[in-house]
Amino acid sequence: MGNSIGKKIVLTVFGESHGSGIGFCIDNIPAGIKINYEEIEKELSERRPKGIGETGRVESDDYEIISGVFNGYTTGAPLLVIIKNKNIKSSDYDKNKPRPSHADYVAYMKYKGYNDYRGGGHFSGRLTASIVFAGAIFGDELKKRKIEISSHIKKIGSVEDRDYDFNNMEKDFFSLQNKKYKVIDDIEEKVEKEIEKVSKEGDSIGGIIQTAVLNMPIGAGEPMFDSVESELSRGIFSIGATKGIEFGLGFLFADKKGSEVNDEMYMDGDIVKTYTNYNGGINGGISNGMPIVFNVAVKPTPSIYKEQKTINIEKMANDTLVIEGRHDPCIVRRICPVIKNMTRFIIADILMQSRLW
Amino acid sequence: MGNSIGKKIVLTVFGESHGSGIGFCIDNIPAGIKINYEEIEKELSERRPKGIGETGRVESDDYEIISGVFNGYTTGAPLLVIIKNKNIKSSDYDKNKPRPSHADYVAYMKYKGYNDYRGGGHFSGRLTASIVFAGAIFGDELKKRKIEISSHIKKIGSVEDRDYDFNNMEKDFFSLQNKKYKVIDDIEEKVEKEIEKVSKEGDSIGGIIQTAVLNMPIGAGEPMFDSVESELSRGIFSIGATKGIEFGLGFLFADKKGSEVNDEMYMDGDIVKTYTNYNGGINGGISNGMPIVFNVAVKPTPSIYKEQKTINIEKMANDTLVIEGRHDPCIVRRICPVIKNMTRFIIADILMQSRLW
Amino acid sequence: MGNSIGKKIVLTVFGESHGSGIGFCIDNIPAGIKINYEEIEKELSERRPKGIGETGRVESDDYEIISGVFNGYTTGAPLLVIIKNKNIKSSDYDKNKPRPSHADYVAYMKYKGYNDYRGGGHFSGRLTASIVFAGAIFGDELKKRKIEISSHIKKIGSVEDRDYDFNNMEKDFFSLQNKKYKVIDDIEEKVEKEIEKVSKEGDSIGGIIQTAVLNMPIGAGEPMFDSVESELSRGIFSIGATKGIEFGLGFLFADKKGSEVNDEMYMDGDIVKTYTNYNGGINGGISNGMPIVFNVAVKPTPSIYKEQKTINIEKMANDTLVIEGRHDPCIVRRICPVIKNMTRFIIADILMQSRLW
Amino acid sequence: MGNSIGKKIVLTVFGESHGSGIGFCIDNIPAGIKINYEEIEKELSERRPKGIGETGRVESDDYEIISGVFNGYTTGAPLLVIIKNKNIKSSDYDKNKPRPSHADYVAYMKYKGYNDYRGGGHFSGRLTASIVFAGAIFGDELKKRKIEISSHIKKIGSVEDRDYDFNNMEKDFFSLQNKKYKVIDDIEEKVEKEIEKVSKEGDSIGGIIQTAVLNMPIGAGEPMFDSVESELSRGIFSIGATKGIEFGLGFLFADKKGSEVNDEMYMDGDIVKTYTNYNGGINGGISNGMPIVFNVAVKPTPSIYKEQKTINIEKMANDTLVIEGRHDPCIVRRICPVIKNMTRFIIADILMQSRLW
Repeated sequence: MGNSIGKKIVLTVFGESHGSGIGFCIDNIPAGIKINYEEIEKELSERRPKGIGETGRVESDDYEIISGVFNGYTTGAPLLVIIKNKNIKSSDYDKNKPRPSHADYVAYMKYKGYNDYRGGGHFSGRLTASIVFAGAIFGDELKKRKIEISSHIKKIGSVEDRDYDFNNMEKDFFSLQNKKYKVIDDIEEKVEKEIEKVSKEGDSIGGIIQTAVLNMPIGAGEPMFDSVESELSRGIFSIGATKGIEFGLGFLFADKKGSEVNDEMYMDGDIVKTYTNYNGGINGGISNGMPIVFNVAVKPTPSIYKEQKTINIEKMANDTLVIEGRHDPCIVRRICPVIKNMTRFIIADILMQSRLW
Repeated sequence: MGNSIGKKIVLTVFGESHGSGIGFCIDNIPAGIKINYEEIEKELSERRPKGIGETGRVESDDYEIISGVFNGYTTGAPLLVIIKNKNIKSSDYDKNKPRPSHADYVAYMKYKGYNDYRGGGHFSGRLTASIVFAGAIFGDELKKRKIEISSHIKKIGSVEDRDYDFNNMEKDFFSLQNKKYKVIDDIEEKVEKEIEKVSKEGDSIGGIIQTAVLNMPIGAGEPMFDSVESELSRGIFSIGATKGIEFGLGFLFADKKGSEVNDEMYMDGDIVKTYTNYNGGINGGISNGMPIVFNVAVKPTPSIYKEQKTINIEKMANDTLVIEGRHDPCIVRRICPVIKNMTRFIIADILMQSRLW
Repeated sequence: MGNSIGKKIVLTVFGESHGSGIGFCIDNIPAGIKINYEEIEKELSERRPKGIGETGRVESDDYEIISGVFNGYTTGAPLLVIIKNKNIKSSDYDKNKPRPSHADYVAYMKYKGYNDYRGGGHFSGRLTASIVFAGAIFGDELKKRKIEISSHIKKIGSVEDRDYDFNNMEKDFFSLQNKKYKVIDDIEEKVEKEIEKVSKEGDSIGGIIQTAVLNMPIGAGEPMFDSVESELSRGIFSIGATKGIEFGLGFLFADKKGSEVNDEMYMDGDIVKTYTNYNGGINGGISNGMPIVFNVAVKPTPSIYKEQKTINIEKMANDTLVIEGRHDPCIVRRICPVIKNMTRFIIADILMQSRLW
Repeated sequence: MGNSIGKKIVLTVFGESHGSGIGFCIDNIPAGIKINYEEIEKELSERRPKGIGETGRVESDDYEIISGVFNGYTTGAPLLVIIKNKNIKSSDYDKNKPRPSHADYVAYMKYKGYNDYRGGGHFSGRLTASIVFAGAIFGDELKKRKIEISSHIKKIGSVEDRDYDFNNMEKDFFSLQNKKYKVIDDIEEKVEKEIEKVSKEGDSIGGIIQTAVLNMPIGAGEPMFDSVESELSRGIFSIGATKGIEFGLGFLFADKKGSEVNDEMYMDGDIVKTYTNYNGGINGGISNGMPIVFNVAVKPTPSIYKEQKTINIEKMANDTLVIEGRHDPCIVRRICPVIKNMTRFIIADILMQSRLW
């Protein structure tokens, strides 16, 4: 419970930010999946700090595959990967002063003080490296089924990117591949300036990430509680700092009329399609063959360098806190590959659940 | 799978819109919960059509408790309830013309034509009566733990209600109790006019529902995949027509700075509180003791009376459809009790998972 | 939890012996399974009392399929069946005097007195009618895959039947079909006399049931905890009065040498077979293509007519009990179809888990 | 699936015999459990080869706790342990000749040749070291609740030990502690001779292990499918070479009368007890407060040094096999601590499921 996800393939994530390492286990993984080491490294590197002002804690993400791979292919037995922690500076954390809007205080209370508080412990964003790795394993298998998944930055602060073009998604996907900041429009510089500004202020900024899944077969997802939306949202909300998810038009549906946003249907040769995709590829929780599209809201990193009011756990009294150490002014860029690869894993599991894999 | 939710108490929902009935099973329910028949009837009646223009299919929701209750208390054995279908007019449905943005077409494809298509079958909103009933069972037990849950209409079309007042939530909750349309401000008439307008046009309209949970204990929710957000979103997305969920500030975080929206902490006597609640009562997926607050986007009912383009399943050709029969121009009002009671069930389960019940 | 079994198809059993009814739900059942009403009635009738001295409570097992079936085929939505209780005589039970070796006392303690104690409530053998029904649904689908399952009485008291003939199983299966007491040898009369004897003494007697699964494909079952043995034993031990299970040689392995009981392999055309089947068709928890064979120990019904020592719950004092009412002197015959159909369900689920269905 | 067990605490086991290591993850483990390193080493050492004729592959079981422990206590985050493989001789295995009664052939077929076949790969008995470790973690917590668990050799070949004395179990438990072969009677020498005899013949021998759980609280276990018997048997059958389990009298019930084997009840002060314990502490699947007692049948190790008939996978033809390398003539002694610690884990999980922990 808690640290496992997936009904047909099961991903379990473990580790702490400043312990000896992090990692993951995938149980019930099909035998014969070729491990694409380049793809794994590419996705991991997207998650590593390299943007403007991002944390100086650069982990090389050296990993060891302990089990489940033999001669380069999955064996069908549990796949277990350890990623060692190396670049650790635990002295930056004061265990008695929980950082506002972080999990420090709830972790202390939940685990009665036994939690490893260093660097957020088990609640650290560090653990998302495992999600990136786990999802990357399924990249080639999804591609074999023509399924492509891409995430881009839709918004950071006041800078907005356009939505994926419903009629030209492959092109948008392709255009993102080699960009440091995954934006479709030519606004990388603007994004960097927006982040630089808050970084200089010792502040942080939020954003929105948009993800699309192309060529999803019809009929994936299970009624009612294992709908595509239920499964994806469960996975996405496991990623720290995500505070909202919407499919298709999402919250914009609120002032729309049915006649404006119903996705009317037509035959494209012998394939059933819709003229529009306001529902983001999902009806009644089940995939309808159109691209699955969803947006995720990301809050500004709570770790800022301005003085903040907090409490002192030891003294149970009011206190103030100035966070030191190395922190990202904006984690939207680094969350992009996490959402993309979480989506890969969930989509693979959904397809297996619905016997489409 | 699919039709079950809950890790410690398990709710399974069954039935079809135009079959002999719908219902639900709750397994692992604690023994000794008193069945509050009045509360159940009150919540079920909130879900029944009574708003402007709502469907003429009024079900009395006569139910039979088949097992799990003895002398008015739960026995600890599975609680099984059947709600009979009575007011059925199946002739209104043409099985060969899937309604746009409904589950008709995906259900046909997923189940290879074996699905009960009448009235949407298993994908019908009718099944949410079971969710209302199931949640209502836990109302008194939550109240014993001081936990109150309330849902209100935050938006329908262009009409907006204000948010819950963070400093005066009990009062807002109380003010909603006897209203037909659950709005905090004095705007019931406006809401009704908005709906009446689209109803006359043979159209439909969407909205947003806001829900809050008061007096949630600290430490509920499990890292990472069973976070409070993960569990609630999984449940909420099982309700037809919901297309987005956001916690606290949600999508508004996107252009906010950390210094603006971090929830600073202080001691209120010997209780740790936050001055603000931008995080909606959840940090790192775990409840922090502040009210849990979330918004849900509801799309306009896809059943409208205007002619729409669709395809013909039998002929595999383009076709047009004019929906007849009885349909709601706006289901936001009726979804309110569904979200409220789904939340009750999920919160009860989360508390048990985290050993706080 | 507790009342559900199955990982890919999920069977949930509910009801109480003297409540309004019992029944079951199967979630995630494939769409398009034809309901074989005759087969269901045949299996249910095998479970009904008709043997020597068996209980006078004959239930006609009238049932209603509430959901999940449309035009005679499963829809893919949850299949929900209610079997009404009719022939009830609750006066025979004294709630203050728990029957030795029954669940009365543990149920009282576990549920703090809220349990429905009448007739054993949720712990009654009555609930096994649901298991018989649920398994019977999969009979034809298993047969399509050539899989045949049969249970016979291997032992009742001092009367023993021979084992299935490894080289002639179909013939043994066939010979059992129309017998009241499922014994391979010509010993029905002996069995009946054995039971009649204890019945006259107001006593009861135990036995052993042997079950075989023919034409199981290779590779079913999952390492380690979802082995074929693990899955079958979990299901079998849910049936009241079962106290042991052994696969292949089972406990007789204890004084055997490897050289005596290893199942040596050979090619039969292009099929790999073993000369012997001491392992009961399972190696390392995985099916090997040979018949799965297992024995189940059934204890004598604890309901006997002799005076027994018990305690009085109200007075918390020693007491004596003379059980009245209607009870079976031997339930081995009636458990045969329960084990057979439980096995059908489990085998179907195992095949789906291992992607062999 | 497959490699996970437990509903409230979840144990996942991974690794391969000749890969880089084996290990396990425990999710949802309560925070604050003190790691008893001595107890872990003691139990691991019981599993290591040291008996007569046992394999020369002695692993020191050096382990690393990767996560979930901080300052010597569990943190509440997933506990992940790696045990490295060191003493490996893969050359002894011929991948084309599956060993009779081993998992070699089924693994090859199930995983389409992608399985790590060396030393049995994921099906190796080596993985039981993880079970021993995982169970040992809960030893002290169970003792705090007065619960003691012990396993002894009831039979090896023709040598039999007596059953636990129902009236003097603590004494029997104590007498076993420092014995190499866990037998209650003074028959260690006989056991050793029995094994030596088959060892010299290049053969192997089976046995029976008896386990008891003292001071189990009343009311643990869930009806029907999560009964104490169901949960224990699922765990036990995950251990290679186990082929049968029986609770209390088990298969001996078959020719017993109810009047002989019903466990009559009485008051011992204000505690309800039974005069006998034929049901092995379980009624209706629920613990009744008496000792839980069960026997497990262990087959002779299939690895013997005599020539055996097998098939050749590459050639798909008949072949013969002479197993080389290092193998145990009897694994009953080494399985004792595996069953004991598997039982510890299952009992801890059952208690949590039933809210008794």
